Amino acid sequence: MKKLNVEQILSEMTLEEKAALVSGKDFWNLKGIERLGVPSIMVTDGPHGLRKQDGKGDHLGLNDSVPATAFPTASGLASTWDRDLIQQVGVALGEETQAEDVGVILGPGVNIKRSPLGGRNFEYFSEDPYLASEMATAHVKGVQSQGVGTSLKHFAVNNQEHRRMSTDAIVDERTLREIYLSAFEGVVKNAQPWTVMTSYNRVNGTYASENEYLLTDILKGEWGHEGVVISDWGGVNEAAHAVKAGNEIEMPASHGIGQKKVLAALEDGSLPLEKLDQAVERILTLIAKVVEFKKENATYNKDEHHALARRVAADTMVLLKNEEAILPLKKEGKIAIIGGFAEKPRYQGGGSSHINSTRKDNAIEEMQKITGDAATFTYAKGYNIEEDHVNEELLLEARSAAEQSDVAIVFAGLPDRYESEGYDRSHMQLPENHNRLIEAVAEVQPNTIVILSNGSPIEMPWVDSVKGVVEGYLAGQAFGGAVADILFGEVNPSGKLAETFPKRVEENPSYIYFPGEGDRVEYREGLFVGYRYYDKTGIQTLFPFGHGLSYTTFEYSNLKVSAKNIKDTSTLTVSVDVKNTGNLAGKESVQLYVRDVESTVIRPVKELKGFGKVSLAPGETKTVTMTLGKRAFAYYNVDMKEWHVESGDFEVQIGRSSQVIELTETVHVESTASAPKPVFTRNTTIGDIMVHEDAAAIIKPMVDKLAEQFSQMGGDDEEGSTSDMMEASMKYLPLRNMVMFSGGAFSEEELQNLLAEMNSL
Amino acid sequence: MKKLNVEQILSEMTLEEKAALVSGKDFWNLKGIERLGVPSIMVTDGPHGLRKQDGKGDHLGLNDSVPATAFPTASGLASTWDRDLIQQVGVALGEETQAEDVGVILGPGVNIKRSPLGGRNFEYFSEDPYLASEMATAHVKGVQSQGVGTSLKHFAVNNQEHRRMSTDAIVDERTLREIYLSAFEGVVKNAQPWTVMTSYNRVNGTYASENEYLLTDILKGEWGHEGVVISDWGGVNEAAHAVKAGNEIEMPASHGIGQKKVLAALEDGSLPLEKLDQAVERILTLIAKVVEFKKENATYNKDEHHALARRVAADTMVLLKNEEAILPLKKEGKIAIIGGFAEKPRYQGGGSSHINSTRKDNAIEEMQKITGDAATFTYAKGYNIEEDHVNEELLLEARSAAEQSDVAIVFAGLPDRYESEGYDRSHMQLPENHNRLIEAVAEVQPNTIVILSNGSPIEMPWVDSVKGVVEGYLAGQAFGGAVADILFGEVNPSGKLAETFPKRVEENPSYIYFPGEGDRVEYREGLFVGYRYYDKTGIQTLFPFGHGLSYTTFEYSNLKVSAKNIKDTSTLTVSVDVKNTGNLAGKESVQLYVRDVESTVIRPVKELKGFGKVSLAPGETKTVTMTLGKRAFAYYNVDMKEWHVESGDFEVQIGRSSQVIELTETVHVESTASAPKPVFTRNTTIGDIMVHEDAAAIIKPMVDKLAEQFSQMGGDDEEGSTSDMMEASMKYLPLRNMVMFSGGAFSEEELQNLLAEMNSL
Repeated sequence: MKKLNVEQILSEMTLEEKAALVSGKDFWNLKGIERLGVPSIMVTDGPHGLRKQDGKGDHLGLNDSVPATAFPTASGLASTWDRDLIQQVGVALGEETQAEDVGVILGPGVNIKRSPLGGRNFEYFSEDPYLASEMATAHVKGVQSQGVGTSLKHFAVNNQEHRRMSTDAIVDERTLREIYLSAFEGVVKNAQPWTVMTSYNRVNGTYASENEYLLTDILKGEWGHEGVVISDWGGVNEAAHAVKAGNEIEMPASHGIGQKKVLAALEDGSLPLEKLDQAVERILTLIAKVVEFKKENATYNKDEHHALARRVAADTMVLLKNEEAILPLKKEGKIAIIGGFAEKPRYQGGGSSHINSTRKDNAIEEMQKITGDAATFTYAKGYNIEEDHVNEELLLEARSAAEQSDVAIVFAGLPDRYESEGYDRSHMQLPENHNRLIEAVAEVQPNTIVILSNGSPIEMPWVDSVKGVVEGYLAGQAFGGAVADILFGEVNPSGKLAETFPKRVEENPSYIYFPGEGDRVEYREGLFVGYRYYDKTGIQTLFPFGHGLSYTTFEYSNLKVSAKNIKDTSTLTVSVDVKNTGNLAGKESVQLYVRDVESTVIRPVKELKGFGKVSLAPGETKTVTMTLGKRAFAYYNVDMKEWHVESGDFEVQIGRSSQVIELTETVHVESTASAPKPVFTRNTTIGDIMVHEDAAAIIKPMVDKLAEQFSQMGGDDEEGSTSDMMEASMKYLPLRNMVMFSGGAFSEEELQNLLAEMNSL
Repeated sequence: MKKLNVEQILSEMTLEEKAALVSGKDFWNLKGIERLGVPSIMVTDGPHGLRKQDGKGDHLGLNDSVPATAFPTASGLASTWDRDLIQQVGVALGEETQAEDVGVILGPGVNIKRSPLGGRNFEYFSEDPYLASEMATAHVKGVQSQGVGTSLKHFAVNNQEHRRMSTDAIVDERTLREIYLSAFEGVVKNAQPWTVMTSYNRVNGTYASENEYLLTDILKGEWGHEGVVISDWGGVNEAAHAVKAGNEIEMPASHGIGQKKVLAALEDGSLPLEKLDQAVERILTLIAKVVEFKKENATYNKDEHHALARRVAADTMVLLKNEEAILPLKKEGKIAIIGGFAEKPRYQGGGSSHINSTRKDNAIEEMQKITGDAATFTYAKGYNIEEDHVNEELLLEARSAAEQSDVAIVFAGLPDRYESEGYDRSHMQLPENHNRLIEAVAEVQPNTIVILSNGSPIEMPWVDSVKGVVEGYLAGQAFGGAVADILFGEVNPSGKLAETFPKRVEENPSYIYFPGEGDRVEYREGLFVGYRYYDKTGIQTLFPFGHGLSYTTFEYSNLKVSAKNIKDTSTLTVSVDVKNTGNLAGKESVQLYVRDVESTVIRPVKELKGFGKVSLAPGETKTVTMTLGKRAFAYYNVDMKEWHVESGDFEVQIGRSSQVIELTETVHVESTASAPKPVFTRNTTIGDIMVHEDAAAIIKPMVDKLAEQFSQMGGDDEEGSTSDMMEASMKYLPLRNMVMFSGGAFSEEELQNLLAEMNSL
């Protein structure tokens, strides 16, 4: 197609046209400008499959959509820890988006899983911002390689569905930077998503869509986002405020209201024309890109995409438990398949991401295909999907089927009504009928394996009574085929958890303050989200972040760092050898955590800063190489308003999971930041002064004299606590107290002179 | 003595005299005004014994002090849950204060035990503000009944020693009111302590001594404190600011600096003369009281006070564990006494409260006195008190002594250097040599009992391998006699924990953010201090708040409430029968917790709101009666700026401890507060509007129409999550979105009209 000349078009637009362009045309289309040859482009829901509404969109956007491939949702995708694979999924999504003549697919979502209860967790990647960032970067690169855009969402601090359109997320600046913005930052810097979608909620008092600090200062300014910021559907409060803040497009259509308000704001001067021009330029640039990269008559191969969906689904699955190597199953014998989810799989979540899949695998059929006649399968429903209460008849039938088989595979998980956009879970349990079914089956069948379909962690009261547990997440339309591949060893599982499974929801760090009081939710746990909390408190989890088993075994060795001493401006290369020491080919995700050995600020015990996945034949060894830059060692210093590395030792830890660290090296990192000049006041403590050599010299005579007085006293204490106390007291004593303790020998004027001298150094 | 005429004196004072009076004369004396016949009065350290310095006080106030009776420190006193007994201790302290010609004894301290690591926890009562308030009220009443004053300290939010003179405690208003101020409030309202001492730290940015909000608005204004506010020693930053804020006296002497600064501030108008006059009037009133109630030639009976100290000490002891009723011991056989603390007891903490006790019981001698010749005692030191590392020789000797006896009693705990004013603990463990000793003894002697001397909780890795554990806290000079009384059943233990013993310090709610970063400590756990946290999260403790065993058994029955429906202005009387169902006389503390069944704000599961202690002969039954007022049901509403009860059901729970609730009644409490008129905005959610009948009527037609549209959609969802989602979406939808979802049929103007109509109701 003919390229659009953005500059030219902008110069020819009327004020009215500009003011009109910043809101949508209808539910799914941006406005065009016919007069100037600017077409209207379509944007539709994602992110793990295209949800393009059939025919004319209703104004709530909920009608049936055209068929599309349902890939695993982000919870599962993240469990692959496989950038290449996620990028392939992105490519496939991009192809479908092109084929359906859509300009932008609305995803991926990188919000942090603050609480396992978040209703939309299944659409998000991880509790860890680095992992989320890496996964989403691959996703965006894949989609955009096909000439269509993505929408990185929901920016920002949108970690619950409860009162999502009105709640105010209160989060301190350091936590905001290190945890809640960090994943967005990585994707913006590494993959330039064509659009970023603002969230519904407020952040520290201001709606995300009106938050100039987040949108203009940080996203566009600090991170250099070049694309368009688009509101979530219905997420704009005041249209002119949104444009001013840097939210360029309001969606869906505002029926002229947005235009009117923007014009009024231009008129009264509250919205500078420059801001509107910038918005319009960005929108035109987006449309121009869609036009430029449009592939006419694009199609995609549904079979190939389904095959990819199956490969991906198998790699998302996490083998949580595999006692006595119960898995993989032999392709023979009597196998009981139990649970309604075997027949009607739960493979995606509710809400705007719910798509009309091109097809749906049947797990039992897929298993039979693998085993042939050597195995016989019996199926028992076990529970009714639509209800929670136990159906005793179905339970007895299932028990009996399990009893008469060599092995029982129970399909369980969370029904649709448990997990959806729009509301959060209120607990972390499976439906009662699922839990009872697993317990009943395990009672009669020692070889019980549980296959879970759920988008977020659950409690597992039965975990000790079953031999195998496979976390299937919401695996997309090929769930049935993928689970068959895993169960019979056609695929060796390699998924690892991208989130912690706590034993009880009450042990999650956000538990008490989630989802807030009225329209206010305080992020009191700060940085200590997910493994950062369990690491720090030593509270035992059900399954830790990064955990996942394989049918083979891997040995880690030969950890190397490129230098033992680096500056914070340098890059450190870390390599480690991984050997497949078992008899099956397999894949392993190697995890790199960095631990600040000593810090003046409160930091997590360690943080994920690198990972790599390798595929290994039996006996094969490969080297995994990872690089660490400044950010791997830094924390966000709120006073300096920048990422800062404190000079000192850092441990580079190589782990199988966050709880199993295999190898450790220590590296010294030297800060290149110039320390800010201290300002001494009457309230600065002696201890804080003494660390500055020059200043210390000035007060030393006085301090020595006081210390001598202190040391002459021991009171009636026999065991030295008085001297310990005196030492602490001296250190914590504000300089002002020298006046008091001098017994009048040192005056207030002398104190002032001393301060002047110290501050002039 | 002749009464002072405060009004008269004030009118005759010069500006210079007034400005001089607001700082101390020297280390331990307030200034007098000789010219006007106003004497200088002495104030000295407490709080569990008088610490009056011998002769001339040095200017650091640490020289030896005159002998005084060392009672148990507050940790132990609180464990008695016995208001009468604490009051008796107060009377004794008052007598000693009179006898030593001191006007005010500096205590008690009611700071909340936020972290078990707080260095001064041994001087404080509890993690619960109600219990702390009740104990301190009794203490203050007792002391002041003798015509001398107390100093309620350290006001406020001083919950650590780390950087205590410079740190800034950041605490939200509701937590401040409900947890950190509440104990002070109770004591001020119930006992009017003659003085209140400000703490060193800052509270939300302002030094406690300069905090007008805390001192003038709350303490004097809301609570009606009539006494004097006195700084902690060296706690004044700027003298004039302190006076202006309501801190009347700076201690110790400021050598003329304070006077100079106050005069300058009067001169430049930054300190109104009225403020200074108010301060001087309060100081003169205090001096006048000391003068008025001075008892000439007062003395006290050291033997009687020691006997009281022994009775109290025995009642402070908490029988934590008593497997197979190993205690009380028979008064016969071979008994191994192990551990240096048996010989050199640790019975008080380090710092300003460390006193020179009148005498010191020897535990072994006291035991021998009780058993006579029927029992033989062997003593083995087991460890050196001065060191942490294991002395193998002492360990072997102790093991051998234990092995050759019928029972082993190990004296262990925290040496002086572990607990002191001035610094916090960095962990919650006993010294390595104490832990190893207990383990070694328990290995060879099944009948092992541990007697603990420590001012705050410790971890007990050996708890499962010993039969008995007695928490002796810091029991004062009669520790030896009291422990003998407990061990041989001369006294039936009745102490119950006034604080939680967590299994590991990492499980304490303040762990991550204690003691802060630099000079800032954030109270992120909010209300969830102590049992409020363990209740909410279900995290198992080592020993819960309120726990304590007896040698007899008690049965609870017949819980009665005076009404099932009350208004929040009424008083509820609660009574319960307690029967001694064992064979020994004993005392039992009955605990009353209130639980708000449903609340719109985040509340603890339950809170202590009453307790009573009864003494019962075998077979005897007594009724414990407690009364609950509004505060028992209220939370502090930060918007209303007052204590507020939400109408609804409340459970009155009667427990043996916070974890063992025996009886429960439900009471309906009706609020008498008029609900504030709602203000509807474009961002008010539909759900929030619908709860107001009038307003709901106005938007109902529109909402019904939208709901109908929503209900017509089901997408491709088979199991109803879409309808759940739609329901949630409607509820959480801001009113402004009606414009968007109306498809243009409803205008912004109509929205504004609607709002005007709703707000005019």
